[in-house]
Amino acid sequence: MANFKGHALPGSFFLIFGLWWSVKYPLKYFHQKGLKKNRLSQQQQRIEIIEGAIKTLFAVIGILAEQFVPDGPHLHLYHENQWTKLMNWQHSTMYLFFGISGIIDMLTYLYFNIVPLGVDRVVLAMAVFSEGFLFYFHVHNRPPLDQHIHSLLLFGLFGASASIFLEVIYRDNIVLELFRTSLLILQGTWFWQIGFVLFPPFGTPEWDQKDMDNIMFITMCFCWHYLVALFITAINYSLVYCFLTRVKRHTEGEVIGIQKLKSDHTYQSALLSGSDEE
Amino acid sequence: MANFKGHALPGSFFLIFGLWWSVKYPLKYFHQKGLKKNRLSQQQQRIEIIEGAIKTLFAVIGILAEQFVPDGPHLHLYHENQWTKLMNWQHSTMYLFFGISGIIDMLTYLYFNIVPLGVDRVVLAMAVFSEGFLFYFHVHNRPPLDQHIHSLLLFGLFGASASIFLEVIYRDNIVLELFRTSLLILQGTWFWQIGFVLFPPFGTPEWDQKDMDNIMFITMCFCWHYLVALFITAINYSLVYCFLTRVKRHTEGEVIGIQKLKSDHTYQSALLSGSDEE
Amino acid sequence: MANFKGHALPGSFFLIFGLWWSVKYPLKYFHQKGLKKNRLSQQQQRIEIIEGAIKTLFAVIGILAEQFVPDGPHLHLYHENQWTKLMNWQHSTMYLFFGISGIIDMLTYLYFNIVPLGVDRVVLAMAVFSEGFLFYFHVHNRPPLDQHIHSLLLFGLFGASASIFLEVIYRDNIVLELFRTSLLILQGTWFWQIGFVLFPPFGTPEWDQKDMDNIMFITMCFCWHYLVALFITAINYSLVYCFLTRVKRHTEGEVIGIQKLKSDHTYQSALLSGSDEE
Amino acid sequence: MANFKGHALPGSFFLIFGLWWSVKYPLKYFHQKGLKKNRLSQQQQRIEIIEGAIKTLFAVIGILAEQFVPDGPHLHLYHENQWTKLMNWQHSTMYLFFGISGIIDMLTYLYFNIVPLGVDRVVLAMAVFSEGFLFYFHVHNRPPLDQHIHSLLLFGLFGASASIFLEVIYRDNIVLELFRTSLLILQGTWFWQIGFVLFPPFGTPEWDQKDMDNIMFITMCFCWHYLVALFITAINYSLVYCFLTRVKRHTEGEVIGIQKLKSDHTYQSALLSGSDEE
Repeated sequence: MANFKGHALPGSFFLIFGLWWSVKYPLKYFHQKGLKKNRLSQQQQRIEIIEGAIKTLFAVIGILAEQFVPDGPHLHLYHENQWTKLMNWQHSTMYLFFGISGIIDMLTYLYFNIVPLGVDRVVLAMAVFSEGFLFYFHVHNRPPLDQHIHSLLLFGLFGASASIFLEVIYRDNIVLELFRTSLLILQGTWFWQIGFVLFPPFGTPEWDQKDMDNIMFITMCFCWHYLVALFITAINYSLVYCFLTRVKRHTEGEVIGIQKLKSDHTYQSALLSGSDEE
Repeated sequence: MANFKGHALPGSFFLIFGLWWSVKYPLKYFHQKGLKKNRLSQQQQRIEIIEGAIKTLFAVIGILAEQFVPDGPHLHLYHENQWTKLMNWQHSTMYLFFGISGIIDMLTYLYFNIVPLGVDRVVLAMAVFSEGFLFYFHVHNRPPLDQHIHSLLLFGLFGASASIFLEVIYRDNIVLELFRTSLLILQGTWFWQIGFVLFPPFGTPEWDQKDMDNIMFITMCFCWHYLVALFITAINYSLVYCFLTRVKRHTEGEVIGIQKLKSDHTYQSALLSGSDEE
Repeated sequence: MANFKGHALPGSFFLIFGLWWSVKYPLKYFHQKGLKKNRLSQQQQRIEIIEGAIKTLFAVIGILAEQFVPDGPHLHLYHENQWTKLMNWQHSTMYLFFGISGIIDMLTYLYFNIVPLGVDRVVLAMAVFSEGFLFYFHVHNRPPLDQHIHSLLLFGLFGASASIFLEVIYRDNIVLELFRTSLLILQGTWFWQIGFVLFPPFGTPEWDQKDMDNIMFITMCFCWHYLVALFITAINYSLVYCFLTRVKRHTEGEVIGIQKLKSDHTYQSALLSGSDEE
Repeated sequence: MANFKGHALPGSFFLIFGLWWSVKYPLKYFHQKGLKKNRLSQQQQRIEIIEGAIKTLFAVIGILAEQFVPDGPHLHLYHENQWTKLMNWQHSTMYLFFGISGIIDMLTYLYFNIVPLGVDRVVLAMAVFSEGFLFYFHVHNRPPLDQHIHSLLLFGLFGASASIFLEVIYRDNIVLELFRTSLLILQGTWFWQIGFVLFPPFGTPEWDQKDMDNIMFITMCFCWHYLVALFITAINYSLVYCFLTRVKRHTEGEVIGIQKLKSDHTYQSALLSGSDEE
């Protein structure tokens, strides 16, 4: 949908997922570091399945929105000798890829001894790549600023796609996961930025879409968005660390309290040593 | 051959191989998982040699078809001061690369202690790359849709080439193998699509090759083809799993029957534990 | 700042850091080789933190210079319905990225059991990439030589970015570190070269910016700069080796002297064997 | 030198090295397989040093030829307010890079406990990259066929450069080494092809440099050259295998003869088991 809402919707989806990942991956990382568990815990598995379900839900919402907005194609692809609303169909296709990626995520964690680990990453990488691929071919014949602001997305998308593909081989690498997270947040905020620039929502004056200075500013603005994305990722990472440390101290405090009551030091210390930091 | 058959032939070859791979690699994967065998079993080796032979056969058929169709070059390269049917020669070269890849496959598995593992992958990667390379330089001066529909193939080809090259280092990675399989099926179905679009076989009206909307649709259609390829790969993967589970249950049932007759529990359980799932 | 100083400043920063790295990494390498220590020594940690601080300082100096030169934007971004001095703002953004990379470096080594190793490399890779990204979009509409001389930088920048990203996975690989060092020195000397070519400082005649021969020379000159950068890296590498060998011989001499005094051979030889070369 | 000899000279250099590598790497591979030695044997080290020396020698010959041909620049770079023979200077720079790569090769194997392994590969990768880099910028403003035939080289060069860079991490991988070898042979034969096409030596008629068919043929011809390069690599690989097997059988025959004389079976079998095939 070539309007403000059509950019705010995917922007919000990506932002929600980006923020969630910026909490999830640090959480997983510190858990693994503390608990020395390599196998999928039941809890983590459940979280991944819910994440996959929500991803699929978002994709379905996106597809329905693209298809059934008043000026949408209403599932008609070819009508009266011409293609109907191909723009909306292309956007639906992008959502569809993410929906399938969500389904694969669920399958990977539901049947984790059947589906080989890594398939979820390949499909996600392909979903991100396809988004970039469709964007690449669909900004021709538009004003320069419109073209430029959309094509900047491609850097984030192809970068993310390559990085996710790397995770097939280097799975559970926290650095790659955080990098991906930051690129996703970037994408989320950038969709909002596109909405604000191309379809100013609050009656602010339109941007001159042929002004070279506007293009130069937008290029720089993209870098600033990435810095903000990095900052958000870093903040959430440290919040998770603080939270986990406090929870742990609290739990240990309780345990020690119980210890004192029970005076069962030897048993407890052996139990605790497993959850100690390295 | 710039007609429907000239696209249906390679399309079928790629499709047959893609479908075969989507059965072969899951089969190999579950076998290795179940039987904990890392070395090449004799049976697997025989299958690979037959695959190489069929690949070479397909390539020979392709070359003969390109050379000896009525308007083909009949092995004349330069005739009366001009090059003869360079298009057919380029197609022959593409087939030739795959033929050589087939021969190398056979040699790799026939003389596996002489030929270093990985050479077969490099040669296959180069065959796929060369196909893309020749396509890249041979769609100039054609109508936009013709150019576009062929150049979309390049994404699949160069992606597959890079992924196959990765297998030199990460050999027997099921995820890379399935990814390659899906790209091959994509290529197969896409060749058919090209045939249907550029040379409508059933008297359907011609496509307007300069219409921007047709190009936009074809781009999206390429993504749908990939989704279909993914779907086929997934279906075959799960069919193989179901088949293997059933076979195993059947075999175990028999074994247990025999066990009851022989009352030789201890020996059998030790024997069975080797083929158990992890 | 589109003048000589504006190129000499970043050139000097990159050069200083490149020269420092060409000493630091060999030093670290020989230390690790000799002492068989894999964990971060306290001393190395302190050096990394100081390096991060200086990097941040340089970035701050760069930003202040770009903002508060007489014809700078003085922190005004939008003024009287037009963007103010976007060029300076873009340069400030480049410096800002390196500043943040410096801060992340410090955090990585200050809280090394919280911040995952590799994050510093990703952020540095992104800083280098962003520099290239901004350069790529900011040389349009300039004379050919100006465009060409800036775009040559991109080869160094994108190469360095990819190489630094590789260090996320292959950390502490001396070859990658030296490669990065040589590319950084190249960048430093090339900024000086740009200054000399585009803004001749000593009253030398201006270069004809449309002459094809000048462009050809500059291309070749870029290669020569890289050879010089390689040479400097190699010289510093061997100087560090010579220095370390001399220090070691000296220390061992003293130790042996002390040994003779104390006549405590057995204890000392056990102690020494740890710092022996492999 | 834009004539037949100017292409035949580098072509021969690359061809000689390619052929040598196609013998050397199989030799090394089978030796390592048979003898289970991972460390550098003295003999291998000596061969590498000689190879480096010959590489440097070839580079020096190339530079001298480019500089001191009758219409060469004779080491004058800037003369009478214009650049002198920049073409020859660019070619000299390419040779220079390979010369430095040769020197680094020698240093790596002479001082192998000082120079880190992998530096030789990085420098070689940069030499190959620089050759491509200079070619890329130096074929503008030429007839289409001339441009095309030179730019095809870039595929081989950038591919080889990436593959050599991979060897920094995956050193001594026979598949990467053979791939590099085949690309080098391709380059050698292609330089000869360029010479024959652009400067027909035996009075054969000139090629029409604007004919689209010629360009199409040359593209295909490049693929054929690669197939020939693959073929040569494969032939030499199997010749080396046959040679080594025969030598071994011969040696073993002698050893067994001696064994019979000495009747010292136990000792000999222990000695032989080390050089047995796996």
